Amino acid sequence: MYYVNENIKDLYRVKFHDERGSVLRLDMNENPEGLPKEVFDKIWAKVTPEYIATYPEKDRLMELLARHDGVLSENISVTAGSDEAMRLIFHCFGEAGKNLLTVTPTFEMYDVYCKMFGMNHVTVDYREDFTLDADAVMDAVDENTGIVILLNPNSPIGAVYKEEEVRAVVEKAQRNGAVVVIDEAYHYFYEPTFLHLIKEYDNLLVLRTFSKLFSIAGLRIGYVSGNAELISYIEKAESTFNVNNIAILFAQELISDQGLIRDLIEKERIGKAWLSERLKEAGYRYAAMEGNYVLFYPNRESKIIVEKLKQKDIWVRDYGRGILNGWIRVSIGSVACMQRFWEAFVEADREETV
Amino acid sequence: MYYVNENIKDLYRVKFHDERGSVLRLDMNENPEGLPKEVFDKIWAKVTPEYIATYPEKDRLMELLARHDGVLSENISVTAGSDEAMRLIFHCFGEAGKNLLTVTPTFEMYDVYCKMFGMNHVTVDYREDFTLDADAVMDAVDENTGIVILLNPNSPIGAVYKEEEVRAVVEKAQRNGAVVVIDEAYHYFYEPTFLHLIKEYDNLLVLRTFSKLFSIAGLRIGYVSGNAELISYIEKAESTFNVNNIAILFAQELISDQGLIRDLIEKERIGKAWLSERLKEAGYRYAAMEGNYVLFYPNRESKIIVEKLKQKDIWVRDYGRGILNGWIRVSIGSVACMQRFWEAFVEADREETV
Repeated sequence: MYYVNENIKDLYRVKFHDERGSVLRLDMNENPEGLPKEVFDKIWAKVTPEYIATYPEKDRLMELLARHDGVLSENISVTAGSDEAMRLIFHCFGEAGKNLLTVTPTFEMYDVYCKMFGMNHVTVDYREDFTLDADAVMDAVDENTGIVILLNPNSPIGAVYKEEEVRAVVEKAQRNGAVVVIDEAYHYFYEPTFLHLIKEYDNLLVLRTFSKLFSIAGLRIGYVSGNAELISYIEKAESTFNVNNIAILFAQELISDQGLIRDLIEKERIGKAWLSERLKEAGYRYAAMEGNYVLFYPNRESKIIVEKLKQKDIWVRDYGRGILNGWIRVSIGSVACMQRFWEAFVEADREETV
Repeated sequence: MYYVNENIKDLYRVKFHDERGSVLRLDMNENPEGLPKEVFDKIWAKVTPEYIATYPEKDRLMELLARHDGVLSENISVTAGSDEAMRLIFHCFGEAGKNLLTVTPTFEMYDVYCKMFGMNHVTVDYREDFTLDADAVMDAVDENTGIVILLNPNSPIGAVYKEEEVRAVVEKAQRNGAVVVIDEAYHYFYEPTFLHLIKEYDNLLVLRTFSKLFSIAGLRIGYVSGNAELISYIEKAESTFNVNNIAILFAQELISDQGLIRDLIEKERIGKAWLSERLKEAGYRYAAMEGNYVLFYPNRESKIIVEKLKQKDIWVRDYGRGILNGWIRVSIGSVACMQRFWEAFVEADREETV
C-alpha cells in the first residue's frame, strides 16, 4: 500500500457544488451583483486569445500593489486568493506539532490548513457581547505557538483590534519565535489597516484579497505583504504560475481605480444602513459591525430561515453552535438586493398558523 | 527567530519576469498565437460581472471530463494547471526521505517539488540516441521509491513509453508501495494514452493540462485522474476554490469541441512538418519526436543563437548540459510562426565574417 500523508488522510473537507450560479448569494460575502458593467467591459476588451495562451506574468501588478501600499515589490507576493497565501504560510512557517492560535468563531480555512500541516489549533473565545478579548489572545501566545492569525475585522462577527493590541501580540509572538498573520480580507469596507507594521516587525504578514470589495472572487487573486525575508520564503514555496492572467489584469486595473473603490464602498454602506434600519425597526437583535455582512437573530430557528430562504433562491448562512447559535449572517449588497432579501425573510420568519 | 521549513529555506527557484508578452513565444510550448478568434469570442461572450464575482464551481466540468475520458467524476480532480496537481501529489504521497524517480532530462518542476517536500531525486539518463531506457527505469524502482514520474511524451525530447513498459513500472511500484504519475501534458499532439490503466491500478495517476493543445496556459487549468481513493486524498488536500471560473468555463467549452481539437492538432502537424523539412534540407541534426516542439543542433553555440533570436523578439530554449548540450528546443506554431522563426534563425546561425 502506498504512503498517504497522515495529516491529509482523515481531514474533513466541506465540498461546494454547482448550486449558487443563479441564486442571490448572501452567504459568502461576495458582491452579489459584481462590478459595474462598464468597468468590466473596459477591462474585458483588453483580453485576446494570445494573452490567455501565454503563461502569466506578475511583475507589473506587484509594482502597482507596492506603490499603492507604500512598500516595495520585494514585500509582496501575489497569490491565488488570500486562501493560497494562507496555504503557503502554513507550508513555510507552520511547524508540525506547534500551535496555531486564532479566535473563535473565525474563518474556517485556518483550521483546515492547521490540520493539513500537522499543527494544533488553540482558540480564544469571543466574549458573549461579541467583543474580542485581545488580552486573552496575548496570554495564549507562548513558546508552543507557531502561527497567530488575527482576522481584522474578524468575520463572521466583525469585531476589530486596536493597534496597541496588535503590537502586543506581534511582539510577544516575536519573543516566542512565532509568525503573526493579519488577514485584512475586509479592508476597504473597514479603512484602518496594520499594513504599515510590516516595516517594523520581521514576523508579521498581512493578507489582502480581491474577492470582497473588488468583486472578483471567481478569478482567485489576493496578496500577502511582509518583511522581504518572510516574503522570499513564500515566493520559494509558490508554484511557478500560481495566479492566472485574467485575475492579474483585473487586479491591475481595479487597484488603480480610486473612483470605483469609492463607489463600491458607498454602495455597500448604503445597503448595510438600509438593512440595519429594517432590523432595528422590526425589533431584531442584530450586529452591524465591520465588514460587508450583518448578523441578526431571527424569531424562528436559524436553520428553518436558511431553508425557507433557499426555497426562494436566496442563500444566507447560519451557525449551529457557540455564541452564534441561532444567529444568521447575511452578506451586504445593493439596496435592491437587500430589499429582495428582507421581503423574503419577513415572510419566512412569520410563525405559520394552521 | 521564527521557524522556516528546511526544505523551502534554501530552495532555488527560477523567477519569470514580464518580458514575453509581445515576443514570438517558442520557448515554453504554449500555442504562440492562441485559440481561433471566433472560438474565443463565443466563450468570452458568456462571462458577466456576476459570474466573476462568484466563487468558482466545478462539478459540471468534472462530469464533462469524466464523460470525455470514459471514467467517473470521482476519478477526477480539477487543478490550477497540472502544476498544482503535481504539488498536491507530492503533498499527499511524497514521503520525506523517500525517492522521486524520473528520467533526465525532463520537466524541471518535478525536481522543485521533490526538494520542497523533502524527497531525494533519483534519475535515469536517456540514452545518447535520445531513446528512453524503460528497463533502467524499472530497475531503479525499489523499496525506497515514493513517486515515479513518466512524462509521456517526455519533453524536452519527446520519446514515449510502450504500454508493457508502463505496466511493468506501475506493477513494480505497486509492490514497493510507490505511486506512479503519468504526465500526459502533450496528449492530443500524441494520441496514445495510458488513462485507461487507472481502472486497473490503485497506484496510478494521469495528468492532463489545458495549457498545451487547448492554448490557455494563462488561465491555469488541468486535471488529474486516478483510482477514486487516490483522488479522494488529492481533493482533501486542495484549497477550496483552487481553480478560477474563467478557466473552468473555457475548459468546459473546449473539451466538447471535437472540430476545434482536430483543427489545433492539424495546424500543429503542418507547422512541425514545415519546420522539419527546412531543418532536413539545410542538413541540421534534428529530432522531431512526439509533442509540440522540435529539437535541433545549430552550427553556432546554442546560447549565441538564443541571444540573437531574442534580439529579434523570438524566444527559444537551449540546454547547457547533459545530452542536450548545444541543442535548441523550439515550440511549434502555425507555418507563419515557423517561417518567422526560420528566417531569423538562418541569419543567426550564419558565422559572422569580419
